[in-house]
Amino acid sequence: MGIMEKIKNIIAKNNSLVCVGLDSEVAKIPTHLKSLEFPQFEFNKLIINATADLVCAYKPNTAFYEAQGEKGIKELKMTCDYLTQKYPEIPIILDAKRADIGNTNNGYVKFAFDYLSADMVTLHPYLGQEALAPFLDRADKGSVILCRTSNPGAGEFQDLRINNKNLFEIVAEKIIKDWNTNNNCLLVVGATYPEELELIRSKTDSMFFLVPGIGAQGGDLEKTLASGLNSEKSGLIISSSRIIIFADNTENFAAKAREEAMKLKEEINKYR
Amino acid sequence: MGIMEKIKNIIAKNNSLVCVGLDSEVAKIPTHLKSLEFPQFEFNKLIINATADLVCAYKPNTAFYEAQGEKGIKELKMTCDYLTQKYPEIPIILDAKRADIGNTNNGYVKFAFDYLSADMVTLHPYLGQEALAPFLDRADKGSVILCRTSNPGAGEFQDLRINNKNLFEIVAEKIIKDWNTNNNCLLVVGATYPEELELIRSKTDSMFFLVPGIGAQGGDLEKTLASGLNSEKSGLIISSSRIIIFADNTENFAAKAREEAMKLKEEINKYR
Repeated sequence: MGIMEKIKNIIAKNNSLVCVGLDSEVAKIPTHLKSLEFPQFEFNKLIINATADLVCAYKPNTAFYEAQGEKGIKELKMTCDYLTQKYPEIPIILDAKRADIGNTNNGYVKFAFDYLSADMVTLHPYLGQEALAPFLDRADKGSVILCRTSNPGAGEFQDLRINNKNLFEIVAEKIIKDWNTNNNCLLVVGATYPEELELIRSKTDSMFFLVPGIGAQGGDLEKTLASGLNSEKSGLIISSSRIIIFADNTENFAAKAREEAMKLKEEINKYR
Repeated sequence: MGIMEKIKNIIAKNNSLVCVGLDSEVAKIPTHLKSLEFPQFEFNKLIINATADLVCAYKPNTAFYEAQGEKGIKELKMTCDYLTQKYPEIPIILDAKRADIGNTNNGYVKFAFDYLSADMVTLHPYLGQEALAPFLDRADKGSVILCRTSNPGAGEFQDLRINNKNLFEIVAEKIIKDWNTNNNCLLVVGATYPEELELIRSKTDSMFFLVPGIGAQGGDLEKTLASGLNSEKSGLIISSSRIIIFADNTENFAAKAREEAMKLKEEINKYR
């Protein structure tokens, strides 16, 4: 099964475009879990069990695990193994924002796709298609490439003008036209930039976009959906993290996360 | 002591611009070390002990450690701890090529600077200065930002023309003029592009460049030095990995690595 089929199947099954970001920063995990041997994993497990029928993907960001060193990597692996075994139909997006030159990327490919069994990984475009071949050549896995990021200063380089286009447009066009021969590329487009999202959507109806920036970062959901949904009222993986996973920090946190995920799913589906 | 002072001190002490890349891919480590509990660490330790008086930095690339999962991260930490304890005067450049949005970068900052005690980390520029603040604000540590990478396809985006300049020039100029307020920025400029190196050097005499691409990647040393040395015949950290660390795969590998590091150091010093 190709990665696009896996994404479309789970969207259909769970009727959801919600991706839960497992940005499980240890300092923010509920106190009663912190004394456990593997607090990040235990936290994730409970979040996952509470939301698995409401999502189309989980997205652990490696930064929050690397911050804990070797032990964090172990807990990240435990999380991915748990997902792979218990919910094999739900894609894992490893939000690692990697990219090195050619062969060096083999190490990251091994880490993301073999060691962690992630289905997709986020990547920087700056080194170009040739450098990213070890990712792009993995036809069974998704390469999710940064195009328009959600941060306030995203425009410093991404808005540079090149022949009446912005750099982020050129990045989008190259990926759409040249990089996606295995039908395994996705683009990262922040919800905080709905006009840019609309512009990128106008260039491809079929490709999926990973959309961070809803919620804590201030992205507007209605505008995002109006700008980004494709002709099938799909094509977006809308990621939310803090507002769901840290909605509550008592023993009730997982039930509260479920409520927030459900709310987001239903809000999105109003516009589909 | 600032990071620039640390770099200048070791260059003076060892009279060397050589950085040894600890790209210690397990498959390439000499057979007799592979049965040890921590082959990457044991290999690195012997390479380090054989070359510590010949270098101005060590540069482990995280890809080769992440490929081994949790255990690789442990061996990377053991390597950095060994360097910090035994050779505290030699800077560690963590070649991690990271960059996420604002606060998420705190996780990578913790990983690179606190957990591993690296002195510098390599970063992608695509998200802009605002996103990289958690790195740039660490005035005691170096941010080594990708400007012109050494790979054959580097030009796909880096050579895009913006107002009669290439994107890599704009990146260089922003970093030189705006990002370097803490005097802790360096640029990555590949030895495989000596003309681009010369152009970037013309924009700053004082900043240090990390220069990969000599050796296995085919960069020409004489051209690199002619193009990149500053007015003090310094300003370059010339990284070489495979040609030094995998020069030999017998029990004699460390002595052979020393020979190669010495040869590179002396070749470079002919032009200084």
